[in-house]
Amino acid sequence: MYQDRIKPRSLWAKVVTPEEAALHIKDGMTVGMSGFTRAGEAKAVPMALAERGRRENFKISLLTGASLGNDLDKTLAEANVLARRMPFQADPALRKRINAGEVMFVDQHLSETVEMIRSRQLGPIDVAIIEAVMIKEDGSIVPTTSVGNSATFAMLAEKVIVEINMTLSPDLEGMHDIYIPTRRPFRGPIPITNPRDRAGMPSIPLDPSRIAAVVISAKQDSCSNIAPPDDETKAIARHLSDFLGNEVAKARLSTSLAPLQAGIGSIANAVMHGFIDTDFHDLTMYSEVLQDSTFDLFDAGKLTFASGSSLTLSQERNAQVFADFSRYKNRLVLRPQEISNHPEVIRRLGLIAINTALEADIYGNVNSTHVMGSQMMNGIGGSGDFARNAYLSVFVTKSTAKDGRISSIVPFVSHVDHCEHDVDLIITEQGLADLRGLAPRERAKTVLANCIHPDYRDIIGDYMRDAERTVGGQTPHILERAFEMHMAYRDHGDMRQVGLDRAAAAE
Amino acid sequence: MYQDRIKPRSLWAKVVTPEEAALHIKDGMTVGMSGFTRAGEAKAVPMALAERGRRENFKISLLTGASLGNDLDKTLAEANVLARRMPFQADPALRKRINAGEVMFVDQHLSETVEMIRSRQLGPIDVAIIEAVMIKEDGSIVPTTSVGNSATFAMLAEKVIVEINMTLSPDLEGMHDIYIPTRRPFRGPIPITNPRDRAGMPSIPLDPSRIAAVVISAKQDSCSNIAPPDDETKAIARHLSDFLGNEVAKARLSTSLAPLQAGIGSIANAVMHGFIDTDFHDLTMYSEVLQDSTFDLFDAGKLTFASGSSLTLSQERNAQVFADFSRYKNRLVLRPQEISNHPEVIRRLGLIAINTALEADIYGNVNSTHVMGSQMMNGIGGSGDFARNAYLSVFVTKSTAKDGRISSIVPFVSHVDHCEHDVDLIITEQGLADLRGLAPRERAKTVLANCIHPDYRDIIGDYMRDAERTVGGQTPHILERAFEMHMAYRDHGDMRQVGLDRAAAAE
Ligand SMILES: CC(C)(COP(=O)(O)OP(=O)(O)OC[C@H]1O[C@@H](n2cnc3c(N)ncnc32)[C@H](O)[C@@H]1OP(=O)(O)O)[C@@H](O)C(=O)NCCC(=O)NCCS
Ligand SMILES: CC(C)(COP(=O)(O)OP(=O)(O)OC[C@H]1O[C@@H](n2cnc3c(N)ncnc32)[C@H](O)[C@@H]1OP(=O)(O)O)[C@@H](O)C(=O)NCCC(=O)NCCS
Repeated sequence: MYQDRIKPRSLWAKVVTPEEAALHIKDGMTVGMSGFTRAGEAKAVPMALAERGRRENFKISLLTGASLGNDLDKTLAEANVLARRMPFQADPALRKRINAGEVMFVDQHLSETVEMIRSRQLGPIDVAIIEAVMIKEDGSIVPTTSVGNSATFAMLAEKVIVEINMTLSPDLEGMHDIYIPTRRPFRGPIPITNPRDRAGMPSIPLDPSRIAAVVISAKQDSCSNIAPPDDETKAIARHLSDFLGNEVAKARLSTSLAPLQAGIGSIANAVMHGFIDTDFHDLTMYSEVLQDSTFDLFDAGKLTFASGSSLTLSQERNAQVFADFSRYKNRLVLRPQEISNHPEVIRRLGLIAINTALEADIYGNVNSTHVMGSQMMNGIGGSGDFARNAYLSVFVTKSTAKDGRISSIVPFVSHVDHCEHDVDLIITEQGLADLRGLAPRERAKTVLANCIHPDYRDIIGDYMRDAERTVGGQTPHILERAFEMHMAYRDHGDMRQVGLDRAAAAE
Repeated sequence: MYQDRIKPRSLWAKVVTPEEAALHIKDGMTVGMSGFTRAGEAKAVPMALAERGRRENFKISLLTGASLGNDLDKTLAEANVLARRMPFQADPALRKRINAGEVMFVDQHLSETVEMIRSRQLGPIDVAIIEAVMIKEDGSIVPTTSVGNSATFAMLAEKVIVEINMTLSPDLEGMHDIYIPTRRPFRGPIPITNPRDRAGMPSIPLDPSRIAAVVISAKQDSCSNIAPPDDETKAIARHLSDFLGNEVAKARLSTSLAPLQAGIGSIANAVMHGFIDTDFHDLTMYSEVLQDSTFDLFDAGKLTFASGSSLTLSQERNAQVFADFSRYKNRLVLRPQEISNHPEVIRRLGLIAINTALEADIYGNVNSTHVMGSQMMNGIGGSGDFARNAYLSVFVTKSTAKDGRISSIVPFVSHVDHCEHDVDLIITEQGLADLRGLAPRERAKTVLANCIHPDYRDIIGDYMRDAERTVGGQTPHILERAFEMHMAYRDHGDMRQVGLDRAAAAE
């Protein structure tokens, strides 16, 4: 009975098939779509669009909240429908086309995309496609498992297509808090001073006459594909909780710490999970993606409230959470990503921000996005919004990747997403480097002593010594050797080759 | 009659010589001192301290607002008194010791230092030395030509030394607005929604019993040492105003633009000066350092209000402004640098932020601090606070330095202070690259076409072509060649050598 989900009767006549709805999208258009980290993306219409793309020649610019589930980015990319994509993605097939220069990928701070659209520096949005559990009497729409950029897309698009997802309960109503900052130069403060504050409305306001089509779907979110905690990620979690315990002992933090933010992926999830085995209590989260660990912490009685922009859960957790939703509902809020990631709120609340690095360098610069300097992985996502403005900015990574052939700590990161000023702690399974208040030469010593895998200590230690002796400076670097480890991996498949070459040369 | 300047009579007995006051400072102490970009630094006590340093062995950590005048950083460095220095400096003699690894320089976002002190991640401050025009009846102190970090230093230091500067008029009272954010987790919004809003008090609150010594001084601020506009900086200014005119034509901005921020130095000053010859009007500034150009714009009737953290003027302008202070006073406010640079306010107001790059790369990353990757120039200053959070983030630089032997546009910046996501426009005298909404490969083409000096177009064009063909990726780079121009300068004194070598090899 989808009619129960579409309160304005006038819209019943607009219910069409996904194929019909997709016809609103034409060559050259800019499409704004719901979806954030595999949660709450429109599912049926983009599939139909890809189908059409296999027969017809057209290209669009696709904007979303963040990455999509249901292999949508893959399917759209392979149908050659994407000319441009922003502000984030995490799909191997799309990634391949981006790196081949076939899709122009505009990687952005996740809080900024809608600011640029509103001020007409980007856009306009021709069509918005928004997944919803319900259209309310007044035309406003209740989103599903993410908010992302949906509110702004819907409010500013020429036409709106709503996908009603019948697999999700209308009980989700009340979980969302839709607040859009007022227009500059008349903008006031964002009225959030605690993760649990609500500033806006439970649904996205929309004049029903702007809804061009409604589609009924029954596809579920893809479940999260992250790996469970392992020995190394558990060690990282332990280093962080030991450090925080010490901060509490020094009375810099209370035993409920500060609101926590955790990035996407396996490592950040494992680190959050690690808080279960600590004495901290009455924790709160002011984060972006809420993963399984959020609910593990609720169930363990550790977490009192979580604010995010999406719910991205494993299959098992997903089933349990939605079967038992009333248990969590009043401890959760999902906000537009502009608000979950807003510098104003992040700085005011004083977050502890935990994000994952692909690689970090001895001076504390972090690369979150580019493998070997050129190949895009996913995008910077919200990590820049959080790292710059947090009370404590933590980056975690295993000390090596690819079975030890890559060291995640290098002399000079091959791409900088987070400069040294935005990085307070670097943690690997080897240990923790506390970089606060240190000059670059001191930072390097701390990173060398604590974070680097034993296989790479001499290689990097030699670089540091040589750079300090032969070049000096605030941040000693030997430019021709700065990327020597990356080049060794490229040429020999193993960064340790630098050490072998050096040993051979010494003989 | 310095007694007129010290309202609490109980403090008259605390008036001592600079030498006596300096005895409060002992080996290993952390000293927080007033002073921001050659304005409002304590002058007599640090001089006496340096004098003592020439006879006695001791070292301190010195924190200020930003750079100091009166050759203080030089004098203190040469007296071997500085173990650590933060968060900014701009002195050649100190720079030399920093780059030699003799002084540990902690380069920080200027809005963050006091957050770290308040949360006890830095500090504690043993002694604060604050320049003032007056101590009021209630013990509160009226700062001079800068606010910087003085309020927090004074409020948190174990002991406070006040330097009364007799050369400045008590009429300065009323120009300052001292607002300190409330303590987390109970922090509320900062009540500033317009550059002219006042949120705090006209003086720094202080219990007079915490004042350990008062010193009377008659030294003036050093005047600013920036170069006047030249043909190249005028061209940069023109490119920017043409661009902004076009934004107004597209109705993205009004003719009063948005509040303006301009960085330190000659180029930023020239660019601001350039607004005199435009049709924009009723401009406002929400900036950090107010230079001559602010007053040029006031006098031209272009500017209605300016908010900053310091007044740093040429000798001539300085004399005129203070002779005629009532003319400007109600159009000016000086705030703590935490507030002038606060991400919350910058994002809310939607600033146009104009800062100077040492070098920028084809993908839009900016180096503001490190010459050839290792040698510190000044520090990141407030540029990161502004660039990340502005409505429009502009970086300006001449296309070459050192008589053309250095190109300020390179394939890969040798140090990253501002990542591609924080840079909207790059402007040189050659032209303007509008990078908004572009993917890295598109950004590179735009920078190549618009910003690079003709001597370097082929060198950089060749790199781009080779990197795209042989490596590809989102951000194509050939790691062994990424710094080839920097290495050519290091080895041959001229970056153009890369082109000469390539031509020779091709023969
Ligand atoms: C950095 C990021 C890719 C790590 O993801 P993760 O799942 O936690 O980490 P993993 O260790 O599993 O690494 C993922 C992949 O990167 C590879 N990798 C890790 N470090 C690497 C390095 N230094 N060089 C090359 N590859 C590396 C891993 O081998 C793995 O490859 P695979 O997919 O082929 O197995 C991910 O966190 C990300 O995209 N971050 C940027 C955006 C962000 O921070 N968003 C959150 C803000 S709220
Ligand atoms: C970048 C910065 C040094 C430029 O200063 P400026 O006075 O406007 O610019 P100039 O062109 O005069 O350059 C200053 C010096 O750097 C040199 N320089 C410029 N570009 C260079 C490059 N790419 N490589 C090496 N040296 C370079 C110049 O030759 C000049 O040297 P000199 O002092 O020996 O004559 C200065 O703006 C700065 O320190 N910025 C960082 C902090 C900041 O942005 N604060 C403002 C935030 S509100």
